[in-house]
Amino acid sequence: MQQRLRGPRRAPAAVLEPTVTGRPSAAAVLLGVDPSLRGTGYGVIQTNRGGPRWLAHGVVRCPAGWDRSRCLLEIATVLRAVVQAQRPTVCVIESLFYAQNYQTALIMGEARGACLVAVAEAGLTVYELAPRRVKQAIVGYGAAQKEAVARMVQRRLGLAEPPPGDAADALALALAYAQEQGRYVLSVPKRI
Amino acid sequence: MQQRLRGPRRAPAAVLEPTVTGRPSAAAVLLGVDPSLRGTGYGVIQTNRGGPRWLAHGVVRCPAGWDRSRCLLEIATVLRAVVQAQRPTVCVIESLFYAQNYQTALIMGEARGACLVAVAEAGLTVYELAPRRVKQAIVGYGAAQKEAVARMVQRRLGLAEPPPGDAADALALALAYAQEQGRYVLSVPKRI
Repeated sequence: MQQRLRGPRRAPAAVLEPTVTGRPSAAAVLLGVDPSLRGTGYGVIQTNRGGPRWLAHGVVRCPAGWDRSRCLLEIATVLRAVVQAQRPTVCVIESLFYAQNYQTALIMGEARGACLVAVAEAGLTVYELAPRRVKQAIVGYGAAQKEAVARMVQRRLGLAEPPPGDAADALALALAYAQEQGRYVLSVPKRI
Repeated sequence: MQQRLRGPRRAPAAVLEPTVTGRPSAAAVLLGVDPSLRGTGYGVIQTNRGGPRWLAHGVVRCPAGWDRSRCLLEIATVLRAVVQAQRPTVCVIESLFYAQNYQTALIMGEARGACLVAVAEAGLTVYELAPRRVKQAIVGYGAAQKEAVARMVQRRLGLAEPPPGDAADALALALAYAQEQGRYVLSVPKRI
């Protein structure tokens, strides 16, 4: 309701502080990460008053023949290089919403651990967002298909073509986080 | 049966190659790691013909108030320092055997991921062993209590007192791995 009453770009009323605090300034660089052992997606955007600006995206591919420890090292190494090149101050990571079994959750956790070490050692503040919430923010529908997310990310960032699925999810995480900045939201992204 | 026929220190018969291959030489340095977000245990031993020799052990404590990303960074930082000081070539990590729920498995996975990045970047080969198998090897009983493991680790390594539980588990992992070297075992530790 409050959402509907405010225009999308109207500044929040001065009498109320936004519930979302401790956020980066308007021109912050955000790194979105969608962790997975064989295909971790990452995306970097800059938040501006005129709208978000694309900086980088990619997918860390680890062939099925690689040992798990080698994959995790590759994930951390690539993310370190991205952080060094783009200098983000905030990392937004996807939270787990579903796992087929404990083994899947464990492996997903390992990939997350590798990502978190790489970004934490560079001093980034880390927040997590559930995929459903990201889809809701970007596509307007919590159960949106991957393609719909990729197309909307392409449109929002003015890209020539839709990014690969995992990178699109990562960019969507950063976009969803940026979108919630300064807004009145019921639940703030969880800092981890 | 084969186990019973051979004396514990008798060399394996020359006609058969041990099923456990790709292992370090007799004087290798092994790092055992028992990962957990708030209390990762580690232990370093040197394998010798005269029996294993203790080199180091400890627990990475992360207070409950710390962000998860901070804990993971602390785990990776401490393990890096241990690896640099002790120069192990093999890491033996505990595999998950039980988790209360997906969230527990995910957090355990994150701690494992932080450990694996730290040891993989130093070039260590990583193996995993199930806790049950470690207890069987060290205490002779797969469902042994933590205290029994700590006491047996103390005895085997000639320590003045039993190590703290998590560090004792880590030392037990390294000891169990060392014990299987050159033996005929039905299943080799899984390289990850």
